[in-house]
Amino acid sequence: MRPFYRVSLLTRQVGSALRQDQSRIFKLISRAEALKRTFASMKERRLEHETVAADELCGRVLAEDVTAPHDVPSRNRAAMDGYAVRSQDTVGASTSSPVRLTITGKRFPADRAGGKIAKAECVYTSTGAPLPSGSDAVAQVENTRLVGSAIEVVRPLAPHENVSIKGEDVKQGETVFKRGHQVPPQGIGMLLGLGIRSVKVVRKPRASIISVGDELVDAYGETQHRVVNDHAYIVRELLRQLGAEPKILGVVPDNPELIKARISEALPDSDIVITIAGSSVGTKDFVPDVVASLGKTVFHGILVTPGKVTGVGIIDGKPVIMLPGYLMSALAGFYFFVVPLVNFLGSESTNWLPVVEAKLEKTARAKHGLERFQLLQLSKRGNSYVATTVEGQLAGRLSLNKVNAYTIIPKGQVLKKGKHVAATLLSPSEFRRIQTET
Amino acid sequence: MRPFYRVSLLTRQVGSALRQDQSRIFKLISRAEALKRTFASMKERRLEHETVAADELCGRVLAEDVTAPHDVPSRNRAAMDGYAVRSQDTVGASTSSPVRLTITGKRFPADRAGGKIAKAECVYTSTGAPLPSGSDAVAQVENTRLVGSAIEVVRPLAPHENVSIKGEDVKQGETVFKRGHQVPPQGIGMLLGLGIRSVKVVRKPRASIISVGDELVDAYGETQHRVVNDHAYIVRELLRQLGAEPKILGVVPDNPELIKARISEALPDSDIVITIAGSSVGTKDFVPDVVASLGKTVFHGILVTPGKVTGVGIIDGKPVIMLPGYLMSALAGFYFFVVPLVNFLGSESTNWLPVVEAKLEKTARAKHGLERFQLLQLSKRGNSYVATTVEGQLAGRLSLNKVNAYTIIPKGQVLKKGKHVAATLLSPSEFRRIQTET
Repeated sequence: MRPFYRVSLLTRQVGSALRQDQSRIFKLISRAEALKRTFASMKERRLEHETVAADELCGRVLAEDVTAPHDVPSRNRAAMDGYAVRSQDTVGASTSSPVRLTITGKRFPADRAGGKIAKAECVYTSTGAPLPSGSDAVAQVENTRLVGSAIEVVRPLAPHENVSIKGEDVKQGETVFKRGHQVPPQGIGMLLGLGIRSVKVVRKPRASIISVGDELVDAYGETQHRVVNDHAYIVRELLRQLGAEPKILGVVPDNPELIKARISEALPDSDIVITIAGSSVGTKDFVPDVVASLGKTVFHGILVTPGKVTGVGIIDGKPVIMLPGYLMSALAGFYFFVVPLVNFLGSESTNWLPVVEAKLEKTARAKHGLERFQLLQLSKRGNSYVATTVEGQLAGRLSLNKVNAYTIIPKGQVLKKGKHVAATLLSPSEFRRIQTET
Repeated sequence: MRPFYRVSLLTRQVGSALRQDQSRIFKLISRAEALKRTFASMKERRLEHETVAADELCGRVLAEDVTAPHDVPSRNRAAMDGYAVRSQDTVGASTSSPVRLTITGKRFPADRAGGKIAKAECVYTSTGAPLPSGSDAVAQVENTRLVGSAIEVVRPLAPHENVSIKGEDVKQGETVFKRGHQVPPQGIGMLLGLGIRSVKVVRKPRASIISVGDELVDAYGETQHRVVNDHAYIVRELLRQLGAEPKILGVVPDNPELIKARISEALPDSDIVITIAGSSVGTKDFVPDVVASLGKTVFHGILVTPGKVTGVGIIDGKPVIMLPGYLMSALAGFYFFVVPLVNFLGSESTNWLPVVEAKLEKTARAKHGLERFQLLQLSKRGNSYVATTVEGQLAGRLSLNKVNAYTIIPKGQVLKKGKHVAATLLSPSEFRRIQTET
């Protein structure tokens, strides 16, 4: 298939509503090439940093290495309930020849100091208690016999047996998190445990969403007999789940001046601008021309279906992603360009969306010359996944409720039933919706 | 291994700090039995419902079926840019014998009505435009020739060809979401597209977290030389990711009266109370006795390591989960009991945490008589997962930063390197941290 669509015929036919560029050639390029050009055309820019409290760090990306301000544990501690002893006192101990040690005190985790023991002495230590100076091991309660105010140890202890050594978990100055890391819930515990209460992170990428179309009204406005900008709310929720800070900038009619004004207004507070609809070659598809007039078109049209009329422009060094109006096409454009860009701006990580291997339950195919963005309904069978391809209408909503993942079928290929594909979940939350077959 | 620990010996030895029940027997039961008893002992209770705006529904659980208030599409619409025609006018059309139709108007998606066509007439319709009455198909622009103010159609059209039929996506009265469903991002679009602006959902389960220990201070308080309640912040973040509404109720010293007061204070505003530490058989482990005095002990002690000293009580029909003090043990108790309970209260779904199949890179084993809660470091190799077991210290924090999943090793079993296990991610966000091997 030729990678060109001649749209002059199309645009010439409908008369006065035409755009000026009747002879424009709509050139399709590959998805990989499109993404490469997009990154190449962006200014070298990174988001600023901001300071966030340790317990609100989850999902944020560290802007600095974090090093331990002190050892963990900060002193030798009992790792078991038992008796702190000098290990050399227990040499040769056995059931028939026990070693007797006098109990001289008790220690608990809240105690600031561990006291002191001398030869043939011991101190009761509950788990986490500081070890008395002089002691170097803990005899577990279960392995001792209580005899008045002394214990009998019935086996020898090695140095440091049942002891958490100062710094054995984390050493002072050790890097506990590297710049660029995303802190997991258990990492929050590590930071707080080290007394670190706030950390510098990369600011969340800000994304503005503009819906274009005379027929559209805001979903929460007066909607009778009108089409609502529901796609904007889907895109906003997906962006939230990616860790971005999305903002819906409402609906703009099919008017180049108004589209221009809305994009210009969005740019100063956005790291990325997303337009929905108006990106095709119809007589009212003004977005590509507006973007070209404000900045530079990186590409318009990719060799993928659905999603073919996706485009990207750069204005003031910021990417403007032009998503098609049909929901499935808009999703294709979203996963192809918005996800990697948010990813790039926000963290440089490449693991935003879960990918699982799934067995196809139905044969799937892509036309010659075009990759296919194939929506899937994943379900679980035992510990593995099976995937049914969901076709539905381009504008279909009910079928979209059933899908939870997508895969890309290479140009002109037939993937037979039973073949395994890499299925990318539409959002991390989709995992909750994967049904287990019974 | 005997499923009993006699702790009388242990508790008898350390004198005055002892609890009264020196002869108490600490009875271990299986995890499955413990969970069964927990559910059985809870009053039949469900959380109330609340009304939430459609675009804030993500992750919430529907409390009612949602039906479509009208058809989608609400009228027949053009599915392509082209010309609305009467399909019977195109019978026999071919390139050599085209059918000529007079263009009588133009229609766009924002138009309220589609106009009307008579025999041998057509109307330009852009995608989404209402179909003129009289027409039943759309001739794609590409398949027509423009001749003055008429077109030539060069092949016959079937009825409804290139037309989105009223109600074909969603029918009025059709159930689009069932009660209990968790709405995905694309579902938000569906609801808003149907003009549904709010829906009744199940209230989020409220969980209170109480940290117990003389040695503890709040992580954001004065922390010099003290151990902070960092586990509480980990548990809070994990609860948030499960869709619960967690609240940290601070630190309580090892004092039965104060523990009692804090739990009693927590109960009215909680659906579930979680205590951390003080659940073992040490001389200062008062939590199980306090819970027993306020309500009923469901069980105390499970045949799993780590996590053995986890317990559950019921007070006023509400579950109190007693987690052990060691972090790995607390996590075990959390995944075994808190996750299913939050799940049960909030949604009745059983798919809260992603489970993937992973190949063991190291042999893993469980002792006779005890299941093992085995933490794993998952990474990706191609499209599949490999898992390294992470041992670390019970109290180890640095090793916990590396893990992202767990599996359960059955009692007394050896799972050899190369064997596949079901690995449960510690939280949905862990997916972002899974590294791909290169």
